[in-house]
Amino acid sequence: MTVLASTIKFLQQPTAIAWVEQAIANLDTILLDHSHCERKAAGVALNLIFRYPSNTKLVRTLTTIAQEELEHFERVNQWLDRRNIALAPLSPPPYGAGLKAQIRRHEPDRLLDSLLVSSLIEARSHERLGLLARHCPEPELAQFYRGLMASEARHYGIYWTLATTYFDRATVTQRLGELATVESELLSTVHPEPRIHS
Amino acid sequence: MTVLASTIKFLQQPTAIAWVEQAIANLDTILLDHSHCERKAAGVALNLIFRYPSNTKLVRTLTTIAQEELEHFERVNQWLDRRNIALAPLSPPPYGAGLKAQIRRHEPDRLLDSLLVSSLIEARSHERLGLLARHCPEPELAQFYRGLMASEARHYGIYWTLATTYFDRATVTQRLGELATVESELLSTVHPEPRIHS
Repeated sequence: MTVLASTIKFLQQPTAIAWVEQAIANLDTILLDHSHCERKAAGVALNLIFRYPSNTKLVRTLTTIAQEELEHFERVNQWLDRRNIALAPLSPPPYGAGLKAQIRRHEPDRLLDSLLVSSLIEARSHERLGLLARHCPEPELAQFYRGLMASEARHYGIYWTLATTYFDRATVTQRLGELATVESELLSTVHPEPRIHS
Repeated sequence: MTVLASTIKFLQQPTAIAWVEQAIANLDTILLDHSHCERKAAGVALNLIFRYPSNTKLVRTLTTIAQEELEHFERVNQWLDRRNIALAPLSPPPYGAGLKAQIRRHEPDRLLDSLLVSSLIEARSHERLGLLARHCPEPELAQFYRGLMASEARHYGIYWTLATTYFDRATVTQRLGELATVESELLSTVHPEPRIHS
């Protein structure tokens, strides 16, 4: 199986070409799943603000992230509307639950793992939106994906920087490596249903 | 006890002057509580989007509300920063839990009650921010409260309109009346700790 060169340093394995083929053959489903991803990303940022209300830097930066995710949610929903795709629930792939299961339950580990899992998801989203931008046969939709890529890149950097605000760099680097291994394993076979993280 | 004339038609009882006196004497605590209120309001809107992902109108309008609440959250937090008030948890008054207890558990009642409880909370917030705007002795802070009032007014109208989108008007009016009675009862004695909804 041919793999694509990855430029995202946080990710241990680049996305397989099989995912790109699956996604391009199912653009409508990918758009609907993307809407759910943006909504969930806003929810995750807001939940972290709820859980750590005294961490000023976290509250401030994650407020901005939540706002941006909601704006993306809105923009993806405009695309759904334009293509007459009705908003609807969609079964999630095992990716999110698999990563969430890695988050340790006790503080301060819980905070570190939560930030790094979000950072990895944003890094993977950045990589995959980039692949959609490059391979999508519809120029306007490709342009839309290209426009979102920059934010996703900023977001994974922000989660990483937050982690290094509250934890020493060696601890962060080691744990990121462990979680990145799990993240790549979760995507080692393409999920049968087309999803952003299938 | 003198009460203030209320111009908010959804509310059965206007706020007592005792609340205004308590709030003006504790502006810093009110600002910190206000920050929590805006964060919770964004959370409530996002949770409704999560719970009813297929209701297009609800998703669209509550995305806008969640964005505005996050923007207010940010602006209140700038005021906290300016006054050197550290972000910190704050015990909530019984108001929110008291209203939440009124939400029936089965659909479609749950949706109706959720929308009307949010509408009432926004209506009360609108009234109280208006009182702060009028009575706050610091002109710039008073101006800030005045600036937020318009959004709160729009928000309670939006929740009401959403309710009438999914339920007939007679049902909405009757249930709003029942919930408004509980809402006013919950505020009939001023909570000893100064809060937006004490």
